[in-house]
Amino acid sequence: MSQQNAPILFTGPDDLRQYISREKRMGKRIGLVPTMGALHEGHLSLVRASCEACDITVVSIFVNPTQFAPNEDFAKYPRTLASDLELLHSCNGTIVVFAPSVETMYPSCFNTFVEVGGITERLEGEYRPTHFRGVATIVLKLFLLVQQDVAFFGQKDFQQCAVIKKMVSDLNVPTQITVCPIIREPDGLAMSSRNKYLSQEERKQAVVLSESLLLAQKMFSHGEKDTDTVCRKVREHILTARDAKIDYAAIVDPETFEDCTELASGVVILLAVRIGATRLIDNIILNYSHSLIFCHKKCP
Amino acid sequence: MSQQNAPILFTGPDDLRQYISREKRMGKRIGLVPTMGALHEGHLSLVRASCEACDITVVSIFVNPTQFAPNEDFAKYPRTLASDLELLHSCNGTIVVFAPSVETMYPSCFNTFVEVGGITERLEGEYRPTHFRGVATIVLKLFLLVQQDVAFFGQKDFQQCAVIKKMVSDLNVPTQITVCPIIREPDGLAMSSRNKYLSQEERKQAVVLSESLLLAQKMFSHGEKDTDTVCRKVREHILTARDAKIDYAAIVDPETFEDCTELASGVVILLAVRIGATRLIDNIILNYSHSLIFCHKKCP
Repeated sequence: MSQQNAPILFTGPDDLRQYISREKRMGKRIGLVPTMGALHEGHLSLVRASCEACDITVVSIFVNPTQFAPNEDFAKYPRTLASDLELLHSCNGTIVVFAPSVETMYPSCFNTFVEVGGITERLEGEYRPTHFRGVATIVLKLFLLVQQDVAFFGQKDFQQCAVIKKMVSDLNVPTQITVCPIIREPDGLAMSSRNKYLSQEERKQAVVLSESLLLAQKMFSHGEKDTDTVCRKVREHILTARDAKIDYAAIVDPETFEDCTELASGVVILLAVRIGATRLIDNIILNYSHSLIFCHKKCP
Repeated sequence: MSQQNAPILFTGPDDLRQYISREKRMGKRIGLVPTMGALHEGHLSLVRASCEACDITVVSIFVNPTQFAPNEDFAKYPRTLASDLELLHSCNGTIVVFAPSVETMYPSCFNTFVEVGGITERLEGEYRPTHFRGVATIVLKLFLLVQQDVAFFGQKDFQQCAVIKKMVSDLNVPTQITVCPIIREPDGLAMSSRNKYLSQEERKQAVVLSESLLLAQKMFSHGEKDTDTVCRKVREHILTARDAKIDYAAIVDPETFEDCTELASGVVILLAVRIGATRLIDNIILNYSHSLIFCHKKCP
């Protein structure tokens, strides 16, 4: 464990670019893991996937203001750079951390946005109308700074992954995109930096999201095809938690995000649920064997 | 003259990418000249600038539908690929032509756009509200396909150059942008593929655009500082042409595109004038010595 080098930290785009282009000239394969920090086992699984596939892994740590609406949690979003660096130090590979300031990424005159249409208008996009514009814009900026061969994203943000893949395809961005499975706490709760917001009592209730998805998978495995029946059961189960309020519980086509009338393998169930003041998302791809991976390590 | 190689023609992005990455691995410097074809001496001056600065010059020829409004001239815009290739053959350098189909650049599911704010809302943006969105989107796509070191644009599309520079800066696009002077017919008319639309009579009248800009430069050289006075003279001169209708004649700051109250070196005068059914644009940067270069060659 003591063999690993500490991550190299860059805060300026020019220094990062210089480093990357030198390494690329030497034929090194570059992986990118974009994060907002407050790292947990979910992020680390992406970092490990990148370290296995690439010579150098760039982990960006940037709480991106443009993907938060004014009423959202930008100010209180956890910022834990020191412990993030420590966690990355424990990973096996050459890791570069890019942690720019807001002013670096968005100087006061900043005024260009990437708008992905269609799939951004549903579900998360309905509840967070400017969210995906902010995501697409910062992700494209990071892609153009890092010039990676592969970028790694977590399936937990299923719709975000679809938006990024669409942007990459539409704009001819020269990168591969790898989506990695959701990592869960031992009781099934999908790992998220926002889980820290939950009180002890809310934390217990939060398990209804993953439980309801497992229930749906089980119904599907037993031959249920009717989306309304399954959707009703999912909602009913979520609402057994006293403080749960459902933003959406939808069963959709994984490409178009349009509602499905019939369950089938590959169809995705997407949830956004508020437990008290904390908004959580989760999803399952029916029959997708990797979608319920549990984290058995004690996460710090 | 017989020494030059014929341009290499690609219509598919994958073939182009493969070619470019092989050349880049060998350390070749890549220049890009984005065009809509119907090449004239204006375009060729960009190609020559690129051939001088780079090992390989990619000339894209693509009439980009997303920068035309439904009522504009997309359908009748001149398409002259064979003679474009011949003209490029006469240039001294390694030239690659990328001429994709509309379906290649915009498959039916295409749905991502780059929106540059602020400077796109004035002048051309007021008259052509979706124009710069289309320009920024196709230019970014080309940049990401070609991965050039430098891209060359003509000052004739002054506001377009500003929009592209803003996009490059805001999105961290790794390219240099070089803006080359306007090339003019012997009588001063700025070269444009749209000049072909002019009748013989309209062609004569079209000279009022460059004449009025020269008049303004002369007034400025003689100490005139008042923008209103100069603007009035410019408009008066343009309207001496029987079929001229002014969309705008504006004196603006070259960065913000806000109206100037006082003339100064570096300030830009921008014109959009319809001569009959043909819309022409032209501009001058006051005191900028390169802004009135005339083409003395007979252009085909």
